[in-house]
Amino acid sequence: MGWPPFDAADLGDRLGRAQAGLRSNGAAALVLGPGADLRYLTGYSAHALERPTILIVPATGTPTLIAPRLEAMAAAASPAAASELIDIAAWDETDDPYRLVELYLSGAGPAGRLLVDPGLPARHLLALQRILPGRSFGLATEVTRPLRAIKDVGEIARLRTAAHAADRVVAQIADGALVGRTEADVSREVGDRLVAAGHQAPAFAIVASGPNGASPHHAAGDRVIQPGDPIVLDIGGTLDGYGSDITRMLWVTGGDPSNGPTTEFLAAFDLVRRANADATAAVRPGAVCGAIDEVARRVIREGGFGDAFIHRLGHGIGLEAHEDPYLVAGNDERLEAGNAFSIEPGIYLPGRFGIRIEDIVVCTDDGLDVLNEAPRDLLIVTGRGVAAG
Amino acid sequence: MGWPPFDAADLGDRLGRAQAGLRSNGAAALVLGPGADLRYLTGYSAHALERPTILIVPATGTPTLIAPRLEAMAAAASPAAASELIDIAAWDETDDPYRLVELYLSGAGPAGRLLVDPGLPARHLLALQRILPGRSFGLATEVTRPLRAIKDVGEIARLRTAAHAADRVVAQIADGALVGRTEADVSREVGDRLVAAGHQAPAFAIVASGPNGASPHHAAGDRVIQPGDPIVLDIGGTLDGYGSDITRMLWVTGGDPSNGPTTEFLAAFDLVRRANADATAAVRPGAVCGAIDEVARRVIREGGFGDAFIHRLGHGIGLEAHEDPYLVAGNDERLEAGNAFSIEPGIYLPGRFGIRIEDIVVCTDDGLDVLNEAPRDLLIVTGRGVAAG
Repeated sequence: MGWPPFDAADLGDRLGRAQAGLRSNGAAALVLGPGADLRYLTGYSAHALERPTILIVPATGTPTLIAPRLEAMAAAASPAAASELIDIAAWDETDDPYRLVELYLSGAGPAGRLLVDPGLPARHLLALQRILPGRSFGLATEVTRPLRAIKDVGEIARLRTAAHAADRVVAQIADGALVGRTEADVSREVGDRLVAAGHQAPAFAIVASGPNGASPHHAAGDRVIQPGDPIVLDIGGTLDGYGSDITRMLWVTGGDPSNGPTTEFLAAFDLVRRANADATAAVRPGAVCGAIDEVARRVIREGGFGDAFIHRLGHGIGLEAHEDPYLVAGNDERLEAGNAFSIEPGIYLPGRFGIRIEDIVVCTDDGLDVLNEAPRDLLIVTGRGVAAG
Repeated sequence: MGWPPFDAADLGDRLGRAQAGLRSNGAAALVLGPGADLRYLTGYSAHALERPTILIVPATGTPTLIAPRLEAMAAAASPAAASELIDIAAWDETDDPYRLVELYLSGAGPAGRLLVDPGLPARHLLALQRILPGRSFGLATEVTRPLRAIKDVGEIARLRTAAHAADRVVAQIADGALVGRTEADVSREVGDRLVAAGHQAPAFAIVASGPNGASPHHAAGDRVIQPGDPIVLDIGGTLDGYGSDITRMLWVTGGDPSNGPTTEFLAAFDLVRRANADATAAVRPGAVCGAIDEVARRVIREGGFGDAFIHRLGHGIGLEAHEDPYLVAGNDERLEAGNAFSIEPGIYLPGRFGIRIEDIVVCTDDGLDVLNEAPRDLLIVTGRGVAAG
């Protein structure tokens, strides 16, 4: 417990800023379930099961964490509760937890907008809407997004540690045996190596070989890796609560130079490589999120593959693998110092191959800080556990 | 993909029964996100990220799976889509997916109640409520619960395979080294062994030693296991999509008989053992869920530990680790043949120890079928990797 390792001063500051945000937005309270907002404000990593655990943060006064009795010991040991920043209210198996929410919300006034956890399951939200028919409901992101999207020094340090751990795993996989193994087998190795490199848990380990690379979220499967295969290696996990996420491209020769990359593949790779570099160079405070996406998209479009870049350029990262800000066409938000996000252009040609190159970057006062340090070149490897040729 | 391994005939039958359920409940459509209902009806295990993936099952007509473009290949390969039981509609990064939901729902009539996935995140539910102000919303469980709570022969076979795999891991941990290791280290071994025994993924591996056992959902931590410790070992994962979940009690002597269990512990253990046995013996079609809970609770109450059994007796299990039916006071539902659930009485004494014994059982036409076969006795072990003494 007590993970991520926030200290009480940080948590007190965050709770205070969240309450100030509620007041300035004219909302009565935050209603949070297990998830990243709860972890951010309390340091508590709650079980997300069918029994509701709900933190009520009123616009003024002490927040209350409503927890099932059998989670109460763990909740009381959380950093925010141990520091008496929040109260704990336990409910028993035969209690109606929603009535308890109603009771504690009445301390936040009889009416007023409730801002709920964006991940709160419908089973809980519909129950709250039924029991509180006079309330209107919005999303907690109104208040928590501006806080969480600006990473502090400690958070950036954790993101960097996570990024470097993932960098090392990419190098280990590139140097290892690949030919003759299934994607799923390599994916399991990635997961083990992410943990060995310091992650608490792997989150995903996409190993998409040959034509499978054309599905951006391909689930590693039974396909056996062969000489002449490109591989999209997109891996990440959580380390001290913060995410890593990197994509690099491998080409497996089996040791035979005649199995090297085709001219067509190299041309497409070069476009993705330039799209990654140009978009990264465009990151600075005040840059429009959608405009950064367009920088990458223009490179790929002018290279003739505009229709093959089928996803947004990037997503924020922090306590969640995907969070604000999103680098996507139409997003007029401007980058601020402290934003952390991915830059991951790609080209996907169904039945043939896919290419993606992804880094995590942080927008800083004077430009940017690229957290990943693994080389972005095409990693041409033998796939036989021998140094690449 | 294609996991869990349902065949098209099963899925077609399930979709047909769900549509019949919608009609008899006077509802317009199911609106499902990634989760167990979607897996049950389509065999599709979707990514649960911020981009909505939504299956619309209208009361009549062909269901449509609305998926982000970069998941569309995976969605199209799902058993239900490959068998043409459902259509796929892909949305692009700059589309509004909720407008697409509105469009496809209009095929289910302009009004009518929508039954949403109980796990649908608030970010999606609030967006749908905003875009569809004339609709009322309920939970899909109205329709899916009666289907999913009655396991068919194939589902019971998978639950049994998962239970036996977990049984083997209990035996391996009991026979292994424990003294001097942290709970977290043993927990990682449990996870690895669950996978080695056939699980796709471990779901939880509670290793609660000494006084930590008094927190029913204790997270395995830094405590070092010592001679004279009781251990609550509560482990499970998913195998072919179906859950395992078993709890057994170990007592670690370190090889020194003077570190054996105390008289007080043995007396409490005996109560939990009898509560488990008596409640199991009370399982039959028509038995009231709350009454089964009371059978176990009475044993423990009459033994003087009524206040220390702080959770319900059990939960259903299947595609989800916890699902209907719940064996809890106040639940007047009656068991039916095909229900699969846990029976897990416990005693928790803060600062001292905890005890729980848990099996997965299936209610059958003529009584019950206990899936776990691991011995329920207190496992007194040396914890030194030598056979128990």
